[in-house]
Amino acid sequence: MTRGTEVIGDVVKRIARVDPAAKQVARGRLDSLTKPIGSLGRLEEIAAQLFALRGAAPELPMKKAVYIFAADHGITAEGVSGYPSEVTYQMVRNFLAGGAAINVLARAHGVAVHVVDVGVDAEFGDAPGLLHVKVRRGSRNMLHEPAMTAAERIAAMTAGMTLADKAHADGVTLLAVGEMGIGNTAAASAITAALTDQPAAMVTGRGTGLNDEAHRRKIRVVEAVLARHRAEDQASEPLEVLRGVGGLEIAAMTGMMLGAASHRIAIVADGFISTAAAAVACGVAPAVRDYLLAGHRSEEPGHGILLRHLALNPILDLGMRLGEGSGAVLAMPVIESAIRLYAEMATFSSAGVSEASA
Amino acid sequence: MTRGTEVIGDVVKRIARVDPAAKQVARGRLDSLTKPIGSLGRLEEIAAQLFALRGAAPELPMKKAVYIFAADHGITAEGVSGYPSEVTYQMVRNFLAGGAAINVLARAHGVAVHVVDVGVDAEFGDAPGLLHVKVRRGSRNMLHEPAMTAAERIAAMTAGMTLADKAHADGVTLLAVGEMGIGNTAAASAITAALTDQPAAMVTGRGTGLNDEAHRRKIRVVEAVLARHRAEDQASEPLEVLRGVGGLEIAAMTGMMLGAASHRIAIVADGFISTAAAAVACGVAPAVRDYLLAGHRSEEPGHGILLRHLALNPILDLGMRLGEGSGAVLAMPVIESAIRLYAEMATFSSAGVSEASA
Repeated sequence: MTRGTEVIGDVVKRIARVDPAAKQVARGRLDSLTKPIGSLGRLEEIAAQLFALRGAAPELPMKKAVYIFAADHGITAEGVSGYPSEVTYQMVRNFLAGGAAINVLARAHGVAVHVVDVGVDAEFGDAPGLLHVKVRRGSRNMLHEPAMTAAERIAAMTAGMTLADKAHADGVTLLAVGEMGIGNTAAASAITAALTDQPAAMVTGRGTGLNDEAHRRKIRVVEAVLARHRAEDQASEPLEVLRGVGGLEIAAMTGMMLGAASHRIAIVADGFISTAAAAVACGVAPAVRDYLLAGHRSEEPGHGILLRHLALNPILDLGMRLGEGSGAVLAMPVIESAIRLYAEMATFSSAGVSEASA
Repeated sequence: MTRGTEVIGDVVKRIARVDPAAKQVARGRLDSLTKPIGSLGRLEEIAAQLFALRGAAPELPMKKAVYIFAADHGITAEGVSGYPSEVTYQMVRNFLAGGAAINVLARAHGVAVHVVDVGVDAEFGDAPGLLHVKVRRGSRNMLHEPAMTAAERIAAMTAGMTLADKAHADGVTLLAVGEMGIGNTAAASAITAALTDQPAAMVTGRGTGLNDEAHRRKIRVVEAVLARHRAEDQASEPLEVLRGVGGLEIAAMTGMMLGAASHRIAIVADGFISTAAAAVACGVAPAVRDYLLAGHRSEEPGHGILLRHLALNPILDLGMRLGEGSGAVLAMPVIESAIRLYAEMATFSSAGVSEASA
């Protein structure tokens, strides 16, 4: 066993299932607040989940962060995206300059933005503000060979785990995990097909907005990728799926989610790619599920399949399909509102309000 | 024609339809931003609607307010709620003390709270912070007579219109209209049945949480209310529906929505009762629809029917059924985010990002 494998195994061992009794404690307080029982709907579930996973109500304001993992994909050589690969680099520059959607949303909702180069096919020099953990300039073309070697997968995962340690040291209690990578919906589609045993056509969408012909080509590419991958040993084992048909940013996101769960940080999955990483993480350590919230339901058809696979009920459903962590960050004001209601509302007895009789 | 009727007629005349060409202007800018076209989903529609209804992008931060209209209902004598009527008074006290759900949400999202007594069956003395526009101590028992006289309906509506003028003078650009009134889901059910021609059983829910037996009783009461009302002249005319089976707070909310639309203020409807007021307002002046957003979908079955009736797509769907404006205020960070993205994102050309080819 390599040193990297050991590190990952140690983190997985530290991920504890959440005690269901803690949720009952939270529900007791929720039922004492000045509102009809259950009338805050999902907000009550969210508050109970966060109380339970922290073992106490999170401090307010919650310390919120989004990590955006950027990488390129060898599979773009097969024409699976309407955008050229260089857009990954350009958008990382846009993140650093503060002009992308995720910057706007994060500023609006008090969320710290961290941009991570885990595998962009370009050199940034010493670009200030960028977290440099590049494993390789882009994943390999998974149509012809595994997207990563075992060593590359481990390097990307441990980079994500190290960032989870950093987030924990920073006091982060609510973490969004987002990405940027031209071609990465093809990787997420292949991961989803492999983990949920669905055909490529069911899990492969239009990504950034492919037309019908380009969409059909993308489905054929994902089918061929899966055929090659399924010929390997242990092709359905989650970390082998990640290595064979994943991406460097997806591996790093998986590592960060594992690390965050080990630190009892609430994790907000974003869209299709982020949830694919969550599915791999839950495959490796099922207890990660207790720390997960789904920020939103994206337009990508494979995302709905992953949400059902993980039994996650998305908080928002606004037809977004942007990535970058945008849907996860937009859900944060809802999540934090749930905690504020839990912590700040008056009780029936403190406010002198009569309770229901029927 | 009375003076009050004239005032209402003048406001209705000032409500202008929104120019569809303005939405196209907004879409042009949205398509220039650094994201795949349409990838922000509903956020793009919201930005375009607000741009169009204001005639320009709203200033940031948006000036946000929630008005909570409180009144009691004579129909509570028939046992339609699990809570005693005194809870209306107690919850108004809770709003003034800052302990209710709406206070917590409004503080979290920078929304000014205004509490309005339009018909609570109790005296508040000179309770500071309360807007005193009481028309009557509770509506009449609509099982036996119209809920209001014509004069009472007009007084409540003009109170709401006057508050819309105040909100406009305060610079409010995003307005949530909420309520508190034990028994008011029965009134909203009767309004919905009358305006959409649905049977009582389809539009009558469990309100604050009735058990099966109490729910059946409530449905029978609403059926009997509708039978009495339908025997009147002009029973399907929206303002007659409001007078016959509405409530003082619902009339005031209708007036405020009409007034807000006349001032080109974006109106966020809350749950079932608020949307019932919106349906009456749109019945009186169809152009109000252009200024309306649906904050959320509540658990009340009649709310879904009203949303379809108004062709409104709710922003949130979190199983809430609290009222107070809570769902509308919780949608405000999403709405304001849409405007921030519109105003603050970089364009493809400003950020030097390549556009899509397919």
